[in-house]
Amino acid sequence: MLNLDELIHSTTQLVEQRLAELLPAEDAEPSATLHRAMRYSIFAGGKRIRPLLCLEAAKACGGTPQTALDAACALETLHTYTLIHDDLPCMDNDDLRRGKPTNHKMFGEGIAVLAGDALLTEVFAMLARVPENARYSVRDYVAELARLTGSLSLVGGQALDLEGEGRPLSPQEIRAIHLGKTAALIEAAVRLGGMSAACSDEQLDSLSAYGRNLGLAFQLIDDVLDVTSSPEVLGKSIGKDSKAQKATLCALLGVENTRAEARARTSEAREALNSFSTEKRESLLSIADLLLQRAY
Amino acid sequence: MLNLDELIHSTTQLVEQRLAELLPAEDAEPSATLHRAMRYSIFAGGKRIRPLLCLEAAKACGGTPQTALDAACALETLHTYTLIHDDLPCMDNDDLRRGKPTNHKMFGEGIAVLAGDALLTEVFAMLARVPENARYSVRDYVAELARLTGSLSLVGGQALDLEGEGRPLSPQEIRAIHLGKTAALIEAAVRLGGMSAACSDEQLDSLSAYGRNLGLAFQLIDDVLDVTSSPEVLGKSIGKDSKAQKATLCALLGVENTRAEARARTSEAREALNSFSTEKRESLLSIADLLLQRAY
Repeated sequence: MLNLDELIHSTTQLVEQRLAELLPAEDAEPSATLHRAMRYSIFAGGKRIRPLLCLEAAKACGGTPQTALDAACALETLHTYTLIHDDLPCMDNDDLRRGKPTNHKMFGEGIAVLAGDALLTEVFAMLARVPENARYSVRDYVAELARLTGSLSLVGGQALDLEGEGRPLSPQEIRAIHLGKTAALIEAAVRLGGMSAACSDEQLDSLSAYGRNLGLAFQLIDDVLDVTSSPEVLGKSIGKDSKAQKATLCALLGVENTRAEARARTSEAREALNSFSTEKRESLLSIADLLLQRAY
Repeated sequence: MLNLDELIHSTTQLVEQRLAELLPAEDAEPSATLHRAMRYSIFAGGKRIRPLLCLEAAKACGGTPQTALDAACALETLHTYTLIHDDLPCMDNDDLRRGKPTNHKMFGEGIAVLAGDALLTEVFAMLARVPENARYSVRDYVAELARLTGSLSLVGGQALDLEGEGRPLSPQEIRAIHLGKTAALIEAAVRLGGMSAACSDEQLDSLSAYGRNLGLAFQLIDDVLDVTSSPEVLGKSIGKDSKAQKATLCALLGVENTRAEARARTSEAREALNSFSTEKRESLLSIADLLLQRAY
């Protein structure tokens, strides 16, 4: 019987220990300030959902957590760089993240830009450490992550989100933002986990559909929480989407319809794993259910 | 007999044509604005020194320009991302670059941050296309570039430069800034060119010493030009180092001593290539001489 709390706890420990090894030391030259800024945001208490999904996808495909560990660290590092840059005054202008001052509030805007840049560079150094196998090489890992996090996907979604502030967006545009900003990296997490375990093409397709739908559900739930939660619970500012005049699906459809849409995406994510054995898919299904519970 | 003007011209054409193929189309979704911003800075008329060095290093080691071409594009793309982020108001706050408005002046700060992020991601997608050979794989290319452009090197140099504004820096600190900000990427350019041509360990060491010394000379010359040139000639604001109270070697040593130091570094760069045949090293020597001439 799966103990999800225990799994999350042990994964967090494993990933944080490895991140501490992989990142340059806090006092490393030429700029200790920069290295402190990088570690500040990496170790600010994230939920480590993307590394968890990466490791569990690897296990679902018959791999070990150890094989996927550096890929998992790369995904968390990439996620962290996007948060630092997102929080900048010229972007979402947020003072609070995970209950703590944002990176630029602590270190200044210039260092925050550079800390994000350095972390993004580190992402690919970490990927270059992931073991190759009979089906996939570092060339594949790098091409894959760049495809799902570049201008055609993650960064493109951020740009559309930024451009859309203050004007009405269509549900199609909002979906494009959700796909880029959130779903692409969740999809990358499970795909890279599977690839590090030499998954089959069919397994990779299943993981993609699971990740994309789970990512869409995740963002819908985030939109709900931005309306219904408190800063104390969420650890970040709330109501900021409506303040920034951001068109969210919640604003268009209302809380209940958005929850229903998140349920539908979660169901699709679950169904995408039907080709895996009950045992192999158990943890990925439980994670999908856990994320959905946040919306209630 | 080498015609350096002709070589620079043909290399620029080759590299710009390939960059146009590799970058997403200007109208690509989800954000055409982002893609326009990326291409705006990439095609803003750079001198393409880093791609030239990369291709000539490959040729010096017996390779062809074609093998090193995607590495050359990766280096220029990386250089461009650093310029976009460097010019931001929270960094050097520059309105003019290569005689044109800087990226954030054209597209706004948020899009400029994202254009830099997207270009940095694209760098590694380009590297993943570089052909592997008996000695080097994509794993090596990625690890190499990340090492020379991350927080321990290029981004670290930018951070130290930023922290140092308004306080006196020692010659050692200034050298660390020059090594990180400028020399590391020039070193990466010739190393990656050599690696793509399956160079020997001895050749790689020679190229490193050449690139590092050339890069130091390059930055010294830039410091001289910041004092002695005009915005019309330089295509960017001048006197900005002293305005920003940046401690440059020029401010510490004076123009003539800085020129002498640039000459010494250029000599060291030239000597590092002694193990190459006269024919193989000719273009790399000529490039070193050409760069030094800019200081007069």
